[in-house]
Amino acid sequence: MGDTVKYTLAERDIPTHWVNLMADLPGDGPPPLHPGTKQPAGPDDLAALFPMNLILQEVSAEAEIEIPEPVRDAYKLWRPTPLYRARRLERELDTPAHIYYKYEGVSPAGSHKPNTAVAQAYENAAAGIRKLTTETGAGQWGSALSFACQLFGLECEVWMVGSSYDQKPYRRSMMETWGATVHRSPSEVTESGRSQREHPTGSLGIAISEAVEVAAQSADTNYSLGSVLNHVLLHQTVIGQEALAQMAMAGEEPDVVVACVGGGSNFGGLTFPFLRRVIRGGARTRFVAAEPAACPTLTRGVYAYDFGDTVGLTPLMPMYTLGHGFVPPPVHAGGLRYHGDSPLVCGLVKAGLVEPRAYRQNDTFEAAVAFARSEGIIPAPEPAHAIRAVIDEALAAREAGEPRVILFGLCGHGNFDLSAYDAYLAGRLEDPEFSESDLEAALASLPEAPALT
Amino acid sequence: MGDTVKYTLAERDIPTHWVNLMADLPGDGPPPLHPGTKQPAGPDDLAALFPMNLILQEVSAEAEIEIPEPVRDAYKLWRPTPLYRARRLERELDTPAHIYYKYEGVSPAGSHKPNTAVAQAYENAAAGIRKLTTETGAGQWGSALSFACQLFGLECEVWMVGSSYDQKPYRRSMMETWGATVHRSPSEVTESGRSQREHPTGSLGIAISEAVEVAAQSADTNYSLGSVLNHVLLHQTVIGQEALAQMAMAGEEPDVVVACVGGGSNFGGLTFPFLRRVIRGGARTRFVAAEPAACPTLTRGVYAYDFGDTVGLTPLMPMYTLGHGFVPPPVHAGGLRYHGDSPLVCGLVKAGLVEPRAYRQNDTFEAAVAFARSEGIIPAPEPAHAIRAVIDEALAAREAGEPRVILFGLCGHGNFDLSAYDAYLAGRLEDPEFSESDLEAALASLPEAPALT
Repeated sequence: MGDTVKYTLAERDIPTHWVNLMADLPGDGPPPLHPGTKQPAGPDDLAALFPMNLILQEVSAEAEIEIPEPVRDAYKLWRPTPLYRARRLERELDTPAHIYYKYEGVSPAGSHKPNTAVAQAYENAAAGIRKLTTETGAGQWGSALSFACQLFGLECEVWMVGSSYDQKPYRRSMMETWGATVHRSPSEVTESGRSQREHPTGSLGIAISEAVEVAAQSADTNYSLGSVLNHVLLHQTVIGQEALAQMAMAGEEPDVVVACVGGGSNFGGLTFPFLRRVIRGGARTRFVAAEPAACPTLTRGVYAYDFGDTVGLTPLMPMYTLGHGFVPPPVHAGGLRYHGDSPLVCGLVKAGLVEPRAYRQNDTFEAAVAFARSEGIIPAPEPAHAIRAVIDEALAAREAGEPRVILFGLCGHGNFDLSAYDAYLAGRLEDPEFSESDLEAALASLPEAPALT
Repeated sequence: MGDTVKYTLAERDIPTHWVNLMADLPGDGPPPLHPGTKQPAGPDDLAALFPMNLILQEVSAEAEIEIPEPVRDAYKLWRPTPLYRARRLERELDTPAHIYYKYEGVSPAGSHKPNTAVAQAYENAAAGIRKLTTETGAGQWGSALSFACQLFGLECEVWMVGSSYDQKPYRRSMMETWGATVHRSPSEVTESGRSQREHPTGSLGIAISEAVEVAAQSADTNYSLGSVLNHVLLHQTVIGQEALAQMAMAGEEPDVVVACVGGGSNFGGLTFPFLRRVIRGGARTRFVAAEPAACPTLTRGVYAYDFGDTVGLTPLMPMYTLGHGFVPPPVHAGGLRYHGDSPLVCGLVKAGLVEPRAYRQNDTFEAAVAFARSEGIIPAPEPAHAIRAVIDEALAAREAGEPRVILFGLCGHGNFDLSAYDAYLAGRLEDPEFSESDLEAALASLPEAPALT
């Protein structure tokens, strides 16, 4: 066997259905609440922002949902994606662990985000919508939606988090090349943006407020979210289904599956098909969720109802949160700078099925450079968090002298993040901490709402 | 049939041999000449810069050369690469033509360049070499060699053309992430660089002089060239061999094959396996070589002996050239800014087997944006020249009301070229011309050498 071990599926192996983990969870979980009345929010409360087909996916109790043919056809542009065994990294770490990674950076936008972008653009176009608005952190999601809107003939308007807009100007150019309009958030074109001028670096929460505000004002404009919601995680389960098939080709069963978590779509996409087997009693697998120590939602947040955005326009969602007013420091993993997380993923953490871990920025870049130099792919700063966790798992396996099969999600490449690598290699990358007093200040913005247990 | 039509080969379909077109050409062609004596240069004259295995490939008369297993193993990191049919673009152009493209941007460095980089790094490592030096234009080649050196445990030192160094800082960061040392060329660390201070934007010719100078000084350091030479084009023929198999899957025979030409490695890599069939009498195919109007080597240069570099350290090569002293204007297609071209490709142009065409920068970006908006992949500025030629061919087919099967090489993505897209979309992209007086001035640097017929 050579150093390169890659498991490639055929086009016919692209999944025909998405996996809806909700069908396998006990009970319905706490419902989202209307932001005004604080009563359970129903499908009608979402109809101003989303087409009915996506709302039905959001609340579906079916275990599997068929992928519409035009979406599956668009998936063929880059799917199936490869799964690799990282033999060169294993050798570098001198570990008995076997490390596998599922690589989503082969999509045109360079990350897993198009998996849901094309599904959302398709359903909105089919519902007669003319334009989508959205927010973007690192620019991965905004790029993906710009690309998807172009495929399905929709306009696209994007609010990009200020710190990322400044760090990653070429992500903006990419969105514009695909025909989108891009604003630096907080912007002057919305009420929400103008109300947040004191936070010039912006945050995902602020950018969401801006995009939601504009979508709510026009009947032919909808809003599109790149993570957090059930239907978004649903669309991403093509990743985990392919990875299951590829691990079967490798003849191995993962002991631990690792992915980074910002809003939860990458994590849910990779892990839910594996988690379903655990819940159904067919496998024993650990799951590790890697997040930034500078925005430690799952490791240090509280489990409570909170708004999805900063201004308070969205329903209240049951989740781990640092408080919707929290503006994370401008770490380069812009896709992980979010005060909350997917309610589904939070419920799994709460239930003890998923173990969250937080990592400092410099530690994640150290891991990313080691990965790039052995495996050849330069990771985005977000999956660098997963790689840090993977290397720690592999070193623990070496210490324990035991084999261990590790699978992780390499959800995007770092071609647009090289200024951060530059700073890291030059020893001038910032490494923000998160103190007890930061936590106290962050949690001060939690709204009044029914308690969660 | 859906909109997405992709032809995917299995890992076992990665070619086992490279195609050496020299074996099928009549006669030996004019030999390279020693820069001092101007007598035919033999293998020994190259031994200061290249390992013997690469020199033997350079002069081989075998029709096929086996790919060493460690190189084929490295190819598996990204090969086989996909071949797509551009149905969305066809519809946009309302053309009866069928357009296919072979996409090499899926490699870690984002272009076709790693196909030869891993082969060269392997042979140098096997020969006990410790370090490779090279030049890079847009950064594609320097990235590829940095990546390949990392795989085979070599140091890598890169001279990057000044204008590209300034336009594409993130290509430098990419090379450094893979462990390379990068200089802006002309640099102060070589005689050659110091002699060219009056050309601060640099050129491939100047950067080659710098890298050759340093390699010639140390026994454990070799030089590596990303294009032009026979063995480099040889390594790239994995592209065309895969494309042949994929066109067979599509059940179509290309009427015309299009690729951009800078030094010729992308062009040769795609076309040589197809050209061999034409030479052997098995096919009728046209071949179009697309180059920048600002550096029109094949369309306006003279067929003569000239140096490969600016300072005059390399052998004299028989090629179309604008004169080795010509410094092309800083167009964004940095990989095409070269005064000469591969002697093999030049010979084919001279023989009338390849038709060269030159395109203005803005026309190529217009084509690239149209492609990005229909097919989803943002092309590098170099293959944007091929896309311009393809769109013209497709529109001509529409005018003529006739079917036409077009295959082109999409040799790299434009993720590092978005500042150029930004300038194009904002209407402030420069569009340098090339006048008769430019030509006269350029040709003034031609050295004295035997005439070619």
